[in-house]
Amino acid sequence: MRSTRAPALSATELAVLEGVMWSHGPSRDALCSHLNSSKTRANALVAGLIEQGWLDEIGPRASSGGRRAETLQLHRGLGVLLGVDLGATGVDIAVLGTDLQVLARHAEPVDVREGPGVVFTLIRTLMRRLLAQLKLKPRDVLAIGIGVPGPVDFESGQLVEPPLMPLWDRYSIRDDLRAEYEAPVWVDNDVNLMALGELWRLKRTLPNFLVIKIGTGIGCGIVCHGEVYRGANGSAGDVGHICVDPAGPRCRCGNLGCVEAMAAGPAIARLGQEAAQAGESEWLARTLAERGGELTPEDVGNASRHGDAAANAIVQRSGALVGQMLASVVNFFNPSHVFIGGGVTGIGPLFLASLRQSVYQRSLALSTRHLEIVLSPLGENAGVIGAGVLALQEVLRLSVSSRRERVAA
Amino acid sequence: MRSTRAPALSATELAVLEGVMWSHGPSRDALCSHLNSSKTRANALVAGLIEQGWLDEIGPRASSGGRRAETLQLHRGLGVLLGVDLGATGVDIAVLGTDLQVLARHAEPVDVREGPGVVFTLIRTLMRRLLAQLKLKPRDVLAIGIGVPGPVDFESGQLVEPPLMPLWDRYSIRDDLRAEYEAPVWVDNDVNLMALGELWRLKRTLPNFLVIKIGTGIGCGIVCHGEVYRGANGSAGDVGHICVDPAGPRCRCGNLGCVEAMAAGPAIARLGQEAAQAGESEWLARTLAERGGELTPEDVGNASRHGDAAANAIVQRSGALVGQMLASVVNFFNPSHVFIGGGVTGIGPLFLASLRQSVYQRSLALSTRHLEIVLSPLGENAGVIGAGVLALQEVLRLSVSSRRERVAA
Repeated sequence: MRSTRAPALSATELAVLEGVMWSHGPSRDALCSHLNSSKTRANALVAGLIEQGWLDEIGPRASSGGRRAETLQLHRGLGVLLGVDLGATGVDIAVLGTDLQVLARHAEPVDVREGPGVVFTLIRTLMRRLLAQLKLKPRDVLAIGIGVPGPVDFESGQLVEPPLMPLWDRYSIRDDLRAEYEAPVWVDNDVNLMALGELWRLKRTLPNFLVIKIGTGIGCGIVCHGEVYRGANGSAGDVGHICVDPAGPRCRCGNLGCVEAMAAGPAIARLGQEAAQAGESEWLARTLAERGGELTPEDVGNASRHGDAAANAIVQRSGALVGQMLASVVNFFNPSHVFIGGGVTGIGPLFLASLRQSVYQRSLALSTRHLEIVLSPLGENAGVIGAGVLALQEVLRLSVSSRRERVAA
Repeated sequence: MRSTRAPALSATELAVLEGVMWSHGPSRDALCSHLNSSKTRANALVAGLIEQGWLDEIGPRASSGGRRAETLQLHRGLGVLLGVDLGATGVDIAVLGTDLQVLARHAEPVDVREGPGVVFTLIRTLMRRLLAQLKLKPRDVLAIGIGVPGPVDFESGQLVEPPLMPLWDRYSIRDDLRAEYEAPVWVDNDVNLMALGELWRLKRTLPNFLVIKIGTGIGCGIVCHGEVYRGANGSAGDVGHICVDPAGPRCRCGNLGCVEAMAAGPAIARLGQEAAQAGESEWLARTLAERGGELTPEDVGNASRHGDAAANAIVQRSGALVGQMLASVVNFFNPSHVFIGGGVTGIGPLFLASLRQSVYQRSLALSTRHLEIVLSPLGENAGVIGAGVLALQEVLRLSVSSRRERVAA
């Protein structure tokens, strides 16, 4: 980060700033108990950090009663965060404050198969436009976090053989942004960032949960022991190719009956088209004609919400298959919560109902006794907020390493 | 622990003793680098712990060259550990030193379905016999660790609705042993303890791996972020009821096609009997007659090792089905290593070969690029060593809490 602006941090100071971030702007008392520290020691640290320009103490916030407390926030002058959530068919970009509140946000369709050149030209344009809207410049950006729909090598920030986006293999997103932004850039898998966003929303109170994203593909973000878990090669949570029917259709990965090939967005659209063409649904046939021969998963969802029986069957089958995959994962991982997100969740309540039924039927009683399966509370914002959390967390850590280097030098 | 003998510990002292345990008796230099501490500080801590009777510094150990270093060990006078590994059809008991070396060990068949009364009468007798063999008394026992083949509530040390052992629900193993031993008792799932044993063998150098046990049931121990992961309700790793064939036979859990019902020990024995009765194998038919109408999985393994085609097919099918389940788990968890243990691994090399082939074929390339699937290096000792590690780790932690209580009182 811009070492010219804020001085480097000690490990203890980092813990204070991370405490402020994870507690969503705590009072001094709340911070003390979060850090398990004495008041005197915490006050001294806080005073130092305010003086160095890392922290602000802001006026009493609206409270539901009792004495109002002043709260601690990361200093606004540190800059803003850019959070990008790139999916297979669209991109969400947000400017966030250091309190992780979304200050401006824009979503736009884009096909990642067009390759990184096209996609990042668009992303850079949208970033510029959002910053201008807030009267900010690229140098006001403290750090950038980017989620992408494929496996990422976290250290280099590059995609590694992403099945949905072949042109992106080993593409350096960091180099792409370096010409325009001094701010450091971190890249992670989109579902890992949704999980990080939910972990922040929960103030880290749930140590073990999953986030499932169902869109063009199916992926899973894993929180284990209170941290996002990426696996030995960064491919943990790659659940789209779990087999749900050994006699199922062939997937583009080469195997038979992968849940992604049978239940994600493209499968729902394809089944909708087949139902329309087979004369099983007047509604879908009419939509197909209007759309000029191609349906989207949203079209099937729309038909289902209007009570179309063929569309209902497709939505239920998709939910049940995802639930069957999830039952295996729940038996293995025994999470307390599963948060469901991604475009396909918008196809209607029957999807979630079938998914739940399938999990509760197929998982062991002990694993599901207290299991909650709900739609992702952050919804469409989970990805950009997670990207902001990643960027803020890593830029704070970087400020400790730069101090270490300086001490060593 | 016996606060009468060794004084209570501070959190820093605990970190030193845990460092000694996980590093398998390190030199002072190795301990410093493990603790990331200065020599002066580490020396002062070590001197204090030697004086308090927690640590010994023992003579130069055999080395492959260079200067021989003195090594630190937990004080022998603290006592010994009892490690018990209870499986569905047998029990292993070991007396271990505080360096986690096995001093005496005994294995005996027992059927857990006979209930806790019968089983623990046997376990207490075997414990007494092993201690007598080493000329030790119950009061020489520092702590006891016990692995059981079912889900455990870790805090209370009780089994919770264990499917293989219905008579054991909520049975208090702690109360059972209290009459004879002052030493504290910890209970965990058997596969979690195998994972803890391997984690100790590896000196905690691998942060993310799995241990699969295939015997009467199929279970999985999970190490995540360098710690054993038990899940939200302690049932993580319950992979035996993952579905591998939606059209498969009904399992005792009520669902169809669970991997345990199709591939664990009882299924192998049943398929062997069916092959013998259908005239598909002379070898198995002869063994069936000798055994008086019942085969064991070992009989099928023995036939397979002698080249019997029907037995080979059964062993390969079992390995392939376990591999199919494991492929889902590998896609989800992306471990660096999978260690395979349990009785069924003894049925011959075809089992592991089929299992591996099935995983590498069904998992994604990125998840398996560096994945190693090998037999558990600790083998039959993994369970008792893990039980010893659990007992030692928890008794050390308890010595910190008792100090806290004393300070508070």
